Amino acid sequence: MKCKSCREPAMVDLPSHNAAFCGPCFLRYFSGQVRAAVKAQAMFGPGERILAALSGGKDSLALANELLEQDCRVSGLFVDLAIPGSSDRARAAVEDFCRARGLDLVVVDLAAEGLAIPEVKRRVRRPVCSVCGKIKRHFFNRAAARGGFEVLATGHNLDDEAARLLANTLRWDGAYLSDQGPLLPAEDGFVRKAKPLYRLTEYETACYCFLKGIEVHDAPCPYSRGATFTSYKRLLDDLEHNSPGSKFAFYDGFLNRGRPAFEAQQAGLGQGLSPCPECGSPTSGDICGVCRIRRLLRGED
Amino acid sequence: MKCKSCREPAMVDLPSHNAAFCGPCFLRYFSGQVRAAVKAQAMFGPGERILAALSGGKDSLALANELLEQDCRVSGLFVDLAIPGSSDRARAAVEDFCRARGLDLVVVDLAAEGLAIPEVKRRVRRPVCSVCGKIKRHFFNRAAARGGFEVLATGHNLDDEAARLLANTLRWDGAYLSDQGPLLPAEDGFVRKAKPLYRLTEYETACYCFLKGIEVHDAPCPYSRGATFTSYKRLLDDLEHNSPGSKFAFYDGFLNRGRPAFEAQQAGLGQGLSPCPECGSPTSGDICGVCRIRRLLRGED
Repeated sequence: MKCKSCREPAMVDLPSHNAAFCGPCFLRYFSGQVRAAVKAQAMFGPGERILAALSGGKDSLALANELLEQDCRVSGLFVDLAIPGSSDRARAAVEDFCRARGLDLVVVDLAAEGLAIPEVKRRVRRPVCSVCGKIKRHFFNRAAARGGFEVLATGHNLDDEAARLLANTLRWDGAYLSDQGPLLPAEDGFVRKAKPLYRLTEYETACYCFLKGIEVHDAPCPYSRGATFTSYKRLLDDLEHNSPGSKFAFYDGFLNRGRPAFEAQQAGLGQGLSPCPECGSPTSGDICGVCRIRRLLRGED
Repeated sequence: MKCKSCREPAMVDLPSHNAAFCGPCFLRYFSGQVRAAVKAQAMFGPGERILAALSGGKDSLALANELLEQDCRVSGLFVDLAIPGSSDRARAAVEDFCRARGLDLVVVDLAAEGLAIPEVKRRVRRPVCSVCGKIKRHFFNRAAARGGFEVLATGHNLDDEAARLLANTLRWDGAYLSDQGPLLPAEDGFVRKAKPLYRLTEYETACYCFLKGIEVHDAPCPYSRGATFTSYKRLLDDLEHNSPGSKFAFYDGFLNRGRPAFEAQQAGLGQGLSPCPECGSPTSGDICGVCRIRRLLRGED
């Protein structure tokens, strides 16, 4: 197999693009996909400050590395979940990555916030993954807003996005379907959110990290089972295997033709947001979800 | 395993309903699902005349048998495709079925219409399955309209409907998504169409025919590869296996929450229909698609 661009021996096979690339040409292709994503969705302009949420995994480190190489004004954010045997190693991977590249790093320590995830898991009855996700998004937004960043970037890739879309579609959840996408504009106290890797698969971000020699923390979270989400990803992989390109076509077709129908349906149904009286974060309730968890952990609920 | 209703030994396991049934209780459950479908979608009332399209396969014969047992005013329709080694046997199964039950049968002979499918396949460049489908729907509608039937019923089951929905959804095809469902009201020269088996799976119609001793023509059409559609069915079966009930939830959720969004989006985009100058069928073009195929076969196009 030869590289589609330069005819040297290929290293990365991409049936979805009817292409294979050698290492250097794959990296150019990868950069091009990130540029195409940023441009197609008008994610950010040259002068804007980007806060990249870093978990220590391949996706977020590939994102930060690529944004740096594209001369974006990027800083890193790490939310330390305080999960024994996991968070320390993730944090070390992120700190090493940032130190080697001179990248500013903001760290939020959930234990210091009274929200260590093991404690949350013990006290909250709902599945811990959804609560942890809520807490992370809260601190992503707070850190970006407090730091004066124009945009919060996350490493969600095409597999993540397509699996979430499939889950939302199987439930025909109009509120989620009207809202899902690689760009969420700033609104009511929420900073802009962008997913510059939405055109690239897990396999592609893994190849990128391998070729760039990026050391990642690749152990799964010990609390995540992720069975449902994993089964959606496998299902989409089967589809992609039978018909290369169908995963991106599903997601991109949704953005162009599906989401507008749900946006129109949901228009005017949105709840008004106001600042949480305890922490100032935008919320549609009396207090925000994270302050409610704080109250619960303090034994007040 | 015991029957959920009567505690006798169960014969049919239905994880999607968290149930298993003995033969007689399964048949009662099956009748209940057909009644629920007819009622939920207001498919037809007691006095209305129903023309049931019969292919000779398990779904359409199960449908006709059940409608007869529910004392509906039903007649059968068979469209003879004139495919060697296949159509004769299908026709024999349908004729035997109708004779044994005293069911009126309307037969449309495509060879006599100059539209034998092998000839169509030789002359038309598009995939034969889609052309054959178009021709069958044309004669379904014509036979129902000419016979004064209020409704044309087909044996589409939940697997058919969910696979078609998945195909339409993966392409986010708004026109198809606004239109898909177990009931199409009469409109502009089209008779009402109903799918009373949409709540029941292929497995369930197969069990029904087995328990009722209905002889079916179960060889697949020699022209159909059906690879894509089959892969969608397998994909949905995987989903159902992981999470029983999800296939119906996907389809029913679409009817309740998905389709309305696309109906609103497509409202006003519909093309006006007028009678085909050659055959009188409703069409959005100069002549209808079937008359265009006739012209092609006569060497006029």
